[in-house]
Amino acid sequence: VPVGTNLLDAARQAGVELVAICGGEGICGECMIRPTAGSLSAPTLTEKAELAANDLAAGFRLACQAQVVGDVRIEIPPTSLTTPQRLQTEGQDAPDDFDPPLFVLDLQVDPPGLDDLRSDESRLRSALAKNRHPRITIERKVLAILPAILRQSAPDYRLRLVIRRNTETEHETKSLAAVLPANTKIYGLAVDVGTTKLAAYLVDLENGTTAARAGAMNPQISYGEDVISRIAYTNSHPDGAKTLQNSLVNSLNNLLDELCTEIDAGQPQIVEAVIVGNTCMHHLFAGLPVAQLGTAPYVAAVSDALLFPASDVGLKLSAGALVYMPPNIAGYVGADHIAMLIGARLKNPSQTTIALDIGTNTEISLFHNNLHWSCSCASGPAFEGAHITDGMRAAAGAIERLQIHGTEVQIKTISEQPATGICGSGILDTIAELRRHGLIDHRGVLKGQHPNLFLQKEKGGPHSAFILASADKTAIGRDIKVTRLDINEIQLAKAAIRTGVETLLSEAKITAEDIDTFLVAGAFGTYLDLDSAIRIGMFPDIGREKYEQIGNAAGSGARAMLVSLKQRQFAEQISLSVNYVELATNPAFHKLYIGSLAFP
Amino acid sequence: VPVGTNLLDAARQAGVELVAICGGEGICGECMIRPTAGSLSAPTLTEKAELAANDLAAGFRLACQAQVVGDVRIEIPPTSLTTPQRLQTEGQDAPDDFDPPLFVLDLQVDPPGLDDLRSDESRLRSALAKNRHPRITIERKVLAILPAILRQSAPDYRLRLVIRRNTETEHETKSLAAVLPANTKIYGLAVDVGTTKLAAYLVDLENGTTAARAGAMNPQISYGEDVISRIAYTNSHPDGAKTLQNSLVNSLNNLLDELCTEIDAGQPQIVEAVIVGNTCMHHLFAGLPVAQLGTAPYVAAVSDALLFPASDVGLKLSAGALVYMPPNIAGYVGADHIAMLIGARLKNPSQTTIALDIGTNTEISLFHNNLHWSCSCASGPAFEGAHITDGMRAAAGAIERLQIHGTEVQIKTISEQPATGICGSGILDTIAELRRHGLIDHRGVLKGQHPNLFLQKEKGGPHSAFILASADKTAIGRDIKVTRLDINEIQLAKAAIRTGVETLLSEAKITAEDIDTFLVAGAFGTYLDLDSAIRIGMFPDIGREKYEQIGNAAGSGARAMLVSLKQRQFAEQISLSVNYVELATNPAFHKLYIGSLAFP
Repeated sequence: VPVGTNLLDAARQAGVELVAICGGEGICGECMIRPTAGSLSAPTLTEKAELAANDLAAGFRLACQAQVVGDVRIEIPPTSLTTPQRLQTEGQDAPDDFDPPLFVLDLQVDPPGLDDLRSDESRLRSALAKNRHPRITIERKVLAILPAILRQSAPDYRLRLVIRRNTETEHETKSLAAVLPANTKIYGLAVDVGTTKLAAYLVDLENGTTAARAGAMNPQISYGEDVISRIAYTNSHPDGAKTLQNSLVNSLNNLLDELCTEIDAGQPQIVEAVIVGNTCMHHLFAGLPVAQLGTAPYVAAVSDALLFPASDVGLKLSAGALVYMPPNIAGYVGADHIAMLIGARLKNPSQTTIALDIGTNTEISLFHNNLHWSCSCASGPAFEGAHITDGMRAAAGAIERLQIHGTEVQIKTISEQPATGICGSGILDTIAELRRHGLIDHRGVLKGQHPNLFLQKEKGGPHSAFILASADKTAIGRDIKVTRLDINEIQLAKAAIRTGVETLLSEAKITAEDIDTFLVAGAFGTYLDLDSAIRIGMFPDIGREKYEQIGNAAGSGARAMLVSLKQRQFAEQISLSVNYVELATNPAFHKLYIGSLAFP
Repeated sequence: VPVGTNLLDAARQAGVELVAICGGEGICGECMIRPTAGSLSAPTLTEKAELAANDLAAGFRLACQAQVVGDVRIEIPPTSLTTPQRLQTEGQDAPDDFDPPLFVLDLQVDPPGLDDLRSDESRLRSALAKNRHPRITIERKVLAILPAILRQSAPDYRLRLVIRRNTETEHETKSLAAVLPANTKIYGLAVDVGTTKLAAYLVDLENGTTAARAGAMNPQISYGEDVISRIAYTNSHPDGAKTLQNSLVNSLNNLLDELCTEIDAGQPQIVEAVIVGNTCMHHLFAGLPVAQLGTAPYVAAVSDALLFPASDVGLKLSAGALVYMPPNIAGYVGADHIAMLIGARLKNPSQTTIALDIGTNTEISLFHNNLHWSCSCASGPAFEGAHITDGMRAAAGAIERLQIHGTEVQIKTISEQPATGICGSGILDTIAELRRHGLIDHRGVLKGQHPNLFLQKEKGGPHSAFILASADKTAIGRDIKVTRLDINEIQLAKAAIRTGVETLLSEAKITAEDIDTFLVAGAFGTYLDLDSAIRIGMFPDIGREKYEQIGNAAGSGARAMLVSLKQRQFAEQISLSVNYVELATNPAFHKLYIGSLAFP
């Protein structure tokens, strides 16, 4: 682009859709970006006004204001991207340490003949020994495909082998994970199984890069929206757990097909998988019982890492492919939390760090003084749009950003579609803006004067409400509004999250001021407006610069574990060293909770 | 029984049916037995006449002659038992060295509670560590059943664990094979999968004794009588191999049900299996391809021992049960041959020993001077009754014993039923008796004078024949006879076997005279009359005392491997040290074969 082009336009030309509620006028502050190489025009007054001081200091700019002055490389935070581009599969890429459990070995096998009557396996073992791998375990399922692939490779009998390093026991051993025709690339499958969504990735196992990614809904939703209702389903249906497992595995197989087609690979090339999920998703996928997760004391069946044949659960990878599942910490702090901590790539374990992933249950970890605490708090489904009058999931048409400028209410919907409801980040913004403008008090009661505000007695009759979009501007033919009860739902949710954070801090005998880094992971955590979250008291007000939104870190952690035994070992260390804090029986929790309900 | 009772009568009273073609007159010599403790009346003149000198010297007696003089313990060779008692599942019992891969550990697990939120697995591991097993691999399938069994064991939470010693790699590791309620007995399943018959055993894994046994036909027979036709079936049907595998596994599951019912055990108590069979049966069971076994150079896919989850092939044992399959030596010397060698319990490997198992293919091993040679010879199905005019399998009504006394032909049929045909041991006796009486010459041509002998020109028209049973005495309404062509089939078969033996001897640069022990295993090998086999030249004439009929040694070997890691290691050593001799390309073979066709 010519010098002088603003980055919002440059991005549009490059097909990168930045969020710009205000249409590029520099007033919504949504299109934040940061140069990582080269430079831009100096910050405008608008930027200096709109951006927080620490964001400015950190080099953040508004794309609509900053102009190109030469070659420049730009970092775009996920929050600045419009939803179609904010694949739920996002997150930091490329693992730090490449220490792969699987590696390829190309070799040539002697042909069978009347002068060489050894079995196919014996001739392969001989070739392995000549290539300095004399002791290799070869599993039946891999042996079963050897004769065909060997004969296809005639007359030169060149093969590509995939060797697995087994570090589960004290002494590392090696096994043959796959037999492939010569010159075949190998991939691993990483999946973050959310209660709602699936994020799947194919990782090139020879260099650790992500080759393809895809997302889908978790099909188990048709058996229950949340974990509790799915456990209830398995308890009330004899083959319920099997049904849930199969529906998930079928979806994963379809996603895998899609990914393979995209990069023109075949299933025999997918030689390992790492699957992460919360404890219930983990157990359902792995065929472990979940009944005990649904009743006190809510214990997991399994906490250690699992490594088992993909074919055991019907996942269609290569014949000998295994599935690695990192450990679970507790019944409600699962393998996905550990994957998130790995994906977050904690630089310095002695730094005081909070890392959390907001969902119906919000899992929180605190690292301080080389110790680690974690807990899960029941934050409820409000941020997923449930129990909210006009709430909806973060889908096209959902109001995801909102600003109040005097009498004007500016909204931004996902995919710029006419509004059909409001999603988590939208309701968070709404409440923060209402509070900023004094339209709700610290108890959450709507008050004051605004054309969109309708105050009504709350006993009986319709509730007080604030209209976000009037009927003539929505796709549903009626007003989209936030009510006193909606605000209350968010109060309960944000109080739960804040209390979780405070309880861990009190376990560590520190305060929020001691936090060096506050990491917010996951889809909602990535798209929420941090200022709004701080303003309503969900997160402590410790300075924006300490916060980092890290995207789908669980997916990123899953990918890292595909290509790094060190990261798997780290996952296993985390599970052994963590201090799990059960909030239900924690004496500090209830007092802190009551204190967290009010808005600052 | 009173002093003076003969042992034939004593045996009948005890429900033990000894063979006695002559009805106890001391002339058929079939009812051989031997006292192992106590003594009997002195040998009669009849016995001295009827028994071979070396049998007499070895302490053998005729049950119809020997009388009880006091308490006595009797050994009954399988050949002396009538067929209904000669279960194909017989063989030497109780393994010599009890060195079990699996052992039980009884322990108590902490209950889950609000004060103990660890996973079921963690609490189990803690109990294991307290019982001095801190490092145990636990497989997903075992973890999947843990929560239910644990909660069934409330309130004391006592469990019986089954621990497996894994010696496949350099360093022994341990894994959890099964979780059972307290005080549950554990068993292993051993199966000899023959091309025709299945022999299955349940072995008490705590003491190595055989708890139950059962036999059945191999259901794959409906897809082809022999190995070659089954391979052809898999080549011509896309899912043919899977079909054959399933039909076999279904039968094994039914046999297992039967065995479990007999001893009032459940499938979760069957925690390991050892399955042996020829290379084709091995591959079909294990889901390995067999196409390459059906075409030159006839190589096996797999030669090393296999250890894999029983559930992978649909065998319904305990959740974590594995199947052990000993190694194959070559395409036509399979795991069953190694099992047979183990079952034979070779006492002294420096002794010169021949061990063989006669079937459509006869596998032969020679041990000499601490070396081991083996080969397979195509002896054909004649001894199974195929390609023989009135041939049949060893089933009720088959003539299994025959003696010619002057003009009289004495026959004994299986189950004493009216004759319907002749089985392998019967035709062997017939030819030996015809030769003994000069009714066939050394080329196999019928000649001389006998009321049952009909000599006809062999070119065109009906062939010469010897009538074993006339139409009025058979169940099929016509004569049962042996023809010149039948004799020729047996000539081909016996020549193949003898040539196999001689080829191995020539490889070892020794002669038959050097053989110390000649072991004959398998169903036909057990029921054949050794004198007949020597008389027709199938076996070398080196003295009856060197021969031993060892029953279903393959089944016995399979049972031994269930309870002995040493025997598994021995099996694996055999496969590594054996010199496999391919007869098809052996220069000595064809010359020896021509020389072996004639009768001595």
